[in-house]
Amino acid sequence: MESWIDERLTRQIAFIAEIDKLKGVLRRTLIMDGSRLENTAEHSWNISVFAMLMHEYTENPCPSLDRVIRMLLLHDIVEIDAGDTFAYDTVGYADKEDRELAAAHRLFGLLPDDQREEWMGLWREFEAGESVDARYANAMDRLLPLLHNYYTGGVSWVKNGIVRSQVVRRIAPVERVTPALWHFAMELLDRAVEKGILIQD
Amino acid sequence: MESWIDERLTRQIAFIAEIDKLKGVLRRTLIMDGSRLENTAEHSWNISVFAMLMHEYTENPCPSLDRVIRMLLLHDIVEIDAGDTFAYDTVGYADKEDRELAAAHRLFGLLPDDQREEWMGLWREFEAGESVDARYANAMDRLLPLLHNYYTGGVSWVKNGIVRSQVVRRIAPVERVTPALWHFAMELLDRAVEKGILIQD
Repeated sequence: MESWIDERLTRQIAFIAEIDKLKGVLRRTLIMDGSRLENTAEHSWNISVFAMLMHEYTENPCPSLDRVIRMLLLHDIVEIDAGDTFAYDTVGYADKEDRELAAAHRLFGLLPDDQREEWMGLWREFEAGESVDARYANAMDRLLPLLHNYYTGGVSWVKNGIVRSQVVRRIAPVERVTPALWHFAMELLDRAVEKGILIQD
Repeated sequence: MESWIDERLTRQIAFIAEIDKLKGVLRRTLIMDGSRLENTAEHSWNISVFAMLMHEYTENPCPSLDRVIRMLLLHDIVEIDAGDTFAYDTVGYADKEDRELAAAHRLFGLLPDDQREEWMGLWREFEAGESVDARYANAMDRLLPLLHNYYTGGVSWVKNGIVRSQVVRRIAPVERVTPALWHFAMELLDRAVEKGILIQD
């Protein structure tokens, strides 16, 4: 922005203008009416509400929903530079970490120093996936696309030749975080196989 | 969903599937690269991050960012039934409250009873705009479209014949919540008038 506002606010406004680009990053999943691909900004809203909705199914220790939502609102901002890496793309995953770290440095680097440290910290925590909060955030991020695939007739699975064992591996983090939703997910996959929208290998 | 999951989870899954429709509700504001209209799901993510970013500018009493973000994630879900009412549409505003209340009853009514009460409560609080948290949430919701308009050359202002005094009235709630950002907004409007993208009346 311009020089008539102080440096701190200038940096914050530059950040909010820059991350608007997340609305133009497309994922592999379709929105639930099947009409088009979902973008990452929409997904970030969707996953945050999903985490609110499912929080009651977590086991002890209970994740802090407040921190989980902040993580989820920020977790995919790096895709502005690094793009969305398809969950089953082993080639793309080879350098995903490097690409996303560089993106995090550039994007969170737009912020004032203290906010950069705090927000980058939330992003790193999500990526590491080790804390109670990050484990829950990650589990939700794995589970929601399952619903999208189920509701849209498995288009993304079929198109990309994804089989059941791959999906099970992908959503494995759900089991430890919330056995109830893991059980639900396994049943959902059984139904998907029965419907012929997911290949049983 | 189907009968093989319990009623509570069935309702929650039905809710998350239904609110996916928010991705298809278009607003009057453009995304910041000017390429297309923004949808309400993207906006809900954007405004939640914006509230995180600007929280430091609030005066005492300090709003609870946790509650503010939950409110903002849910505040526009009613637009699935009621549509986006343009901020300067006086005809549309005449029955906005009735339309949105009916929408809230239907949409939050998909949830289990306890979640319906809690989430509907957050929505009502936002709409009433009286609590410290709701005042801050509302102020952010008024302020962010200003940035969108500024960055996109005032297209939505010009197209809809909006003049400066209308914008000032629209963002009036910002002044009480955060004088620093109110000052910033007034300067931004001055610059918009200078650039010829907003009419000074």
